[in-house]
Amino acid sequence: MGDDDLSRKTLKNLTVDEARGRMLAGAARLGVEEVPLAKALGRVLAAPVVADRDQPPFAASAMDGWAIRRADLVPGARFQIAGESAAGQAYGRPVEAGQAVRIFTGAPVPRGADLVVIQENATRDGDTVALTIDRDPPPGNIRPAGGDFRSGDVLLTEGARLDAWRLALAAAAGWPNLDVAVRPRVAILATGDELVPPGYVPAPDQIFESGSFALAALVEAWGGQATRLKAQADDRDAIARAVAEAQFDLLVTVGGASVGDHDLVKPALQTLGLDLRVQTVAVRPGKPTWFGVLEADGVGGRPVLGLPGNPASALVCAELFLRPLLAALTGADPGLAIETGVLAAPLPANGPREHWMRAARAVDPDGRVRVTPFSDQDSSLIGVFSRADCLVLRPAGAAAADVGDVVQLLPLARG
Amino acid sequence: MGDDDLSRKTLKNLTVDEARGRMLAGAARLGVEEVPLAKALGRVLAAPVVADRDQPPFAASAMDGWAIRRADLVPGARFQIAGESAAGQAYGRPVEAGQAVRIFTGAPVPRGADLVVIQENATRDGDTVALTIDRDPPPGNIRPAGGDFRSGDVLLTEGARLDAWRLALAAAAGWPNLDVAVRPRVAILATGDELVPPGYVPAPDQIFESGSFALAALVEAWGGQATRLKAQADDRDAIARAVAEAQFDLLVTVGGASVGDHDLVKPALQTLGLDLRVQTVAVRPGKPTWFGVLEADGVGGRPVLGLPGNPASALVCAELFLRPLLAALTGADPGLAIETGVLAAPLPANGPREHWMRAARAVDPDGRVRVTPFSDQDSSLIGVFSRADCLVLRPAGAAAADVGDVVQLLPLARG
Repeated sequence: MGDDDLSRKTLKNLTVDEARGRMLAGAARLGVEEVPLAKALGRVLAAPVVADRDQPPFAASAMDGWAIRRADLVPGARFQIAGESAAGQAYGRPVEAGQAVRIFTGAPVPRGADLVVIQENATRDGDTVALTIDRDPPPGNIRPAGGDFRSGDVLLTEGARLDAWRLALAAAAGWPNLDVAVRPRVAILATGDELVPPGYVPAPDQIFESGSFALAALVEAWGGQATRLKAQADDRDAIARAVAEAQFDLLVTVGGASVGDHDLVKPALQTLGLDLRVQTVAVRPGKPTWFGVLEADGVGGRPVLGLPGNPASALVCAELFLRPLLAALTGADPGLAIETGVLAAPLPANGPREHWMRAARAVDPDGRVRVTPFSDQDSSLIGVFSRADCLVLRPAGAAAADVGDVVQLLPLARG
Repeated sequence: MGDDDLSRKTLKNLTVDEARGRMLAGAARLGVEEVPLAKALGRVLAAPVVADRDQPPFAASAMDGWAIRRADLVPGARFQIAGESAAGQAYGRPVEAGQAVRIFTGAPVPRGADLVVIQENATRDGDTVALTIDRDPPPGNIRPAGGDFRSGDVLLTEGARLDAWRLALAAAAGWPNLDVAVRPRVAILATGDELVPPGYVPAPDQIFESGSFALAALVEAWGGQATRLKAQADDRDAIARAVAEAQFDLLVTVGGASVGDHDLVKPALQTLGLDLRVQTVAVRPGKPTWFGVLEADGVGGRPVLGLPGNPASALVCAELFLRPLLAALTGADPGLAIETGVLAAPLPANGPREHWMRAARAVDPDGRVRVTPFSDQDSSLIGVFSRADCLVLRPAGAAAADVGDVVQLLPLARG
């Protein structure tokens, strides 16, 4: 067998890990841009966020009350009211012996004071206030300077995806703009003579095209910019033309992925110089999934992910391959967020292909994750998928499994 | 005690459930609009999606192979090739005795045929093909018409949030546009003399405003349209003016919520006719959370949710109150998606307020959810919150809890 035959052979029936490894091999962050904080939701950090100031920047009161010197607090003590410290309106002088400063939550604790007595324990009388305290909890109702974070702390690392809580942290550190990865432009092309767009009148042998809508939604959730190209019939030239005219960093095709006489996507893209890197994958559903690169050179090129036309196959393989690809193209972690659970129903032995079963996940009253794979796992079923909230992994050749057996699962981010 | 005193008294220290009940009492879907499927991600359905056609609309082949009459398949059988059925290119005639029709995955099975023999079991010779079969699995590699869904099936119900999988289902049913709830316009107003926007130079007693960025992100994720108003100093007239000029269906204020001398938000809104419905809540963090209605009439008015200025308090109470409010304003389920887990660390007895602790969640190798509340639960800590992925519920007056005890928790939708 020649080298060429050998390398061609090894493109077929790859394990999921092998296939993903080949897809990620050339994938790297596309570019970096600066965006305002208020536009950064969902973006991936391209540089760490570092604090250049303590937070809080001063010792702050944890409640409304009176700031005093702890040593002054003896039974029956009465204090001279010296002034007030409010949030954003600090008391500028030190607190002297026998003085109390009215203070509000979040306000700077004046120098000299080391205890805030909660206002419920105060009785004011003109210019003086009597204070009592049952317990004296360290650190005296005072939030220390730098207690949230300190100047120099790395608050967020490169590759972190910006959600509400990370945005709050970047804001609290005073960053008005953030360096983030450019969003990959993802073109999605569905093909097949059988497809008509929703709203059109299908011929009796046609169905509505649905995969591109779901994939576009996933691409957006995973940090890409999705464009749905016009679906194409099984026509090699038309497919090649549609791809040649499209702008994208990553092309996702849906359908036309198997080896039937009507699967023309790979031949069409080969006329555009496709370098095929994955031909089939030992996965169920999704065996016809393929991967290649357009304008391949030593380091890069534009990746093309070929997903099967069956919707369940396409959406399973989007989780296994498209999500990691988008992560790699934005500098985020491409790993799958695998969790575990126990089976609520028995499963038969698995065949030679890794199987990702659509399943429903529930946490039972004792805190255990319990998963129920749907009984019909046919790869054409959209209804079943729309009721699933996780995928249960059955490794290739896995023995039959019983109720209560532990399985690995991939949660789906349902709305 | 007069009626007025009684009703005023009952506005204070409400349980979380009581407070949420008052907030949701007048909240209803604001309106309905039709949007194209491709723009419907994240929206809430205002009408069910019903199938008006079977899916698949015809019995379809589950693989590439040959469609025949099952009764013809005897050992050594050879079939006359009669034609081809491809996806979108049906074979128009019935299959006669002794005939085989080349068929591809997803293609209509011709009338008369009740078995598809996979192509690996076929040997073609000119106009004939020899077929063998080891097992004859029902239903003969054929996907029955309506096997995914049937005409008349309710595929998605009113109130469902449209995610990738539900969009696929609506597309598969041929719906080009969907009736969805109008997105509530949510104005977010942070107040406090201590606040400066990120990027500005703070005075020594000032901090960066962070809560509005996180809240805007949450509002968008929860189906609202967020507008961050310019943060206001502690100035009653300025606050009232900012609110009077803003366009919103729901106002969220951050800060100025407690009873300190510098908390001017409620007084400012009372000049605009605020009808206060919740004054404080027995929750930790977030006791100063309040709720009222502007332009209240018998049935409605514009709701105002007052969140505390401490970021952790604001973000906890956003989960407990803002998310349900937005759900109610869009016709979605306002319930909290509570799960369970077991403690990985002991907890002391709880005080009189329901406590929602920032915690990290992990599923251990035997499928059990294990939660570790962070040791510092101070309500000012943004760093701690940015590392949390769930909130652990400690009911009011809960006894001390041990490692392994079951707790209720609210997962956070981290990025």
